[in-house]
Amino acid sequence: MAFSFTLEAQDSATEARAGRFTTAHGEVLTPVFLPVGTAGSVKTLTPDDVRAAGARILLANTYHLSLRPGAETVRRLGGLHRFMGWDGAILTDSGGFQVMSLSPLRRVNDGGVEFRSHLDGSKHLLTPERAIEIQDALDTDIAMSLDQLVEVPSTPEEIRESVDRTLTWAARGLAARGRLREEGRGAMALFGINQGSADPAERRRCFQGLGPLPFDGFALGGLWVGEGRTLGIEMVEHDCRMFPKERPRYLMGVGHPVDVIESIARGIDLFDCVLPTRNARRGTVFTATGRLVVKNAAYAYDERPLDPDCDCYTCRTFTRAYMRHLFSVGELLAMRLASLHAVHHMLRLVQRARAAIVEGGFARFRTDVLERFRSGDTLAPTGP
Amino acid sequence: MAFSFTLEAQDSATEARAGRFTTAHGEVLTPVFLPVGTAGSVKTLTPDDVRAAGARILLANTYHLSLRPGAETVRRLGGLHRFMGWDGAILTDSGGFQVMSLSPLRRVNDGGVEFRSHLDGSKHLLTPERAIEIQDALDTDIAMSLDQLVEVPSTPEEIRESVDRTLTWAARGLAARGRLREEGRGAMALFGINQGSADPAERRRCFQGLGPLPFDGFALGGLWVGEGRTLGIEMVEHDCRMFPKERPRYLMGVGHPVDVIESIARGIDLFDCVLPTRNARRGTVFTATGRLVVKNAAYAYDERPLDPDCDCYTCRTFTRAYMRHLFSVGELLAMRLASLHAVHHMLRLVQRARAAIVEGGFARFRTDVLERFRSGDTLAPTGP
Repeated sequence: MAFSFTLEAQDSATEARAGRFTTAHGEVLTPVFLPVGTAGSVKTLTPDDVRAAGARILLANTYHLSLRPGAETVRRLGGLHRFMGWDGAILTDSGGFQVMSLSPLRRVNDGGVEFRSHLDGSKHLLTPERAIEIQDALDTDIAMSLDQLVEVPSTPEEIRESVDRTLTWAARGLAARGRLREEGRGAMALFGINQGSADPAERRRCFQGLGPLPFDGFALGGLWVGEGRTLGIEMVEHDCRMFPKERPRYLMGVGHPVDVIESIARGIDLFDCVLPTRNARRGTVFTATGRLVVKNAAYAYDERPLDPDCDCYTCRTFTRAYMRHLFSVGELLAMRLASLHAVHHMLRLVQRARAAIVEGGFARFRTDVLERFRSGDTLAPTGP
Repeated sequence: MAFSFTLEAQDSATEARAGRFTTAHGEVLTPVFLPVGTAGSVKTLTPDDVRAAGARILLANTYHLSLRPGAETVRRLGGLHRFMGWDGAILTDSGGFQVMSLSPLRRVNDGGVEFRSHLDGSKHLLTPERAIEIQDALDTDIAMSLDQLVEVPSTPEEIRESVDRTLTWAARGLAARGRLREEGRGAMALFGINQGSADPAERRRCFQGLGPLPFDGFALGGLWVGEGRTLGIEMVEHDCRMFPKERPRYLMGVGHPVDVIESIARGIDLFDCVLPTRNARRGTVFTATGRLVVKNAAYAYDERPLDPDCDCYTCRTFTRAYMRHLFSVGELLAMRLASLHAVHHMLRLVQRARAAIVEGGFARFRTDVLERFRSGDTLAPTGP
């Protein structure tokens, strides 16, 4: 089934929008948060858990899967959906971000990125064409075009160069998918990634090249990498003004509840982030009223759930006292139960945002959610 | 509700028997295998998982829980059932075994065991009375009397001394429960533990003292600690001949499928063991046809489930190739999925044994299960 995106509602007071897209693995309502299944599992959770939490689309990492078990292995085993037992949609990244953040040694030139695996030092070459081939082998529903990132801060020349390269690579990625389609493969959607760091002029120049290309959606790259929330949100606003209304907009790697709400208000449709689940595995979870460090000894007698506003299995079943105990003794169940809450919490947040947009009450919803998140209510420990 | 045990069927060809016992937290059919929830969780699994696998009773460790979070903390939080969200029955051990195996420093005298915590070196005293008080604070359904273990090998004097002490401590534990009952507490059942290492005469002498005491059941202690399977099974046969038919018989710390079947054949009703789940977390699981080391690279393309004979969630959903991948990349989900299979497999084994006893076909069942377990069928990897 061909990828298609439909806008269903547009908030009148903000740029927030509700939509849906269809993939060969089902329909996805937007705004949406993608739990991250880095190496073919959303850490500690089963596909059933993730589906029960409301997820209909996951992100998987091309870098990790192409190193282990290898894209060809996944293809031979029937593709990533079958391999990991997930029948919903999958979006894969291009691998570029992980190459830059994880590989101990890499060299970028016009051809692509040569890098060494962070696992065994083996040498690999990631080109725009190879990124597409790998993602096709994984049988993804939505692939991302290989882009070039720059660090923060970077010089204007570095930013300019990365924009130029991102544009060349975008065209090469599309061409690669075109060739796959001639062979009856490459059915996946393909999103282009806008770059230009936190420089509005460069982001504009990048999108002038990217916008006319036949991408199925557009992503905002190079943000939330150290430039700060205010500047990040400004860039979101800036990019969303340029992006066409009729294509989905994906803010990569952003998952703090405040950032998600503020970015939805500016017109973002998709988010993914490891932050909520990574924090959860370390004993800290987002709740409706803020960040709860449940592993703290202060919660040893607190009989409330992690988040009294939440109806996930963890919050319906266990106390903070028990969760604190599990973290304190190093039980793996702690990470699993906290991760379940984390995924559920993010999905409920975007679902509620969507409902508010559809009902015309998003502005009020946004104020209420942000006020409550900043309130810290229910976070003070109870007990002796 | 008072503890009661009913025998329902006795195999004609072996000593195998089917029964049931009632507790304040439900009824349990025997023979039964108890998953181990050491520190208040069956590692990686939720109470729902364990119940769905068929468990109606768990074991929890007095030693671990009394150190963290502390028996008084558990009591204040409503007891262990409420604390860990488990509404089935709970059996606790006396703590004696872990003191001997985990504590870096301990001194045993007639009063009890002085030991240092393996966590922080703090000093503790475990007496027969304290063992009962702790288990009562945990709100257990079945408590174990404090016994004294000896190592293998031990001298005849050491074995004799441990039997003497075990008998004195047994009477003191019963008296301690009696005093609790006068205060309206101590509702739990209490099992006595037979000792005497692998010396039949000493085990007999121990039970001559233990048997007349008003214990609700009897356990076989000091076995499977290095004496070897043949001798262990001999001692099981020996003890079961002495034990009264109308009380449940508990073989502590035994969980290899072959040992379980052979011990059921000799009249054992209860088993517990960390072996199946500990192995599982390390990438090895028992299947109907033997031990599968699924983490081995040889299974990288094997699309069969861990155990083609098994109907657990893991086996219904995932391939060996996927499981091997998860272990290979260190995903926590691997441990969870393998643990789920492990618990399910043991519970199905005892359930099937029970059905065979009730239907009068246990001898045939035993032969079939052992032959199939030793066959190694389906263990050879498939794929390129």
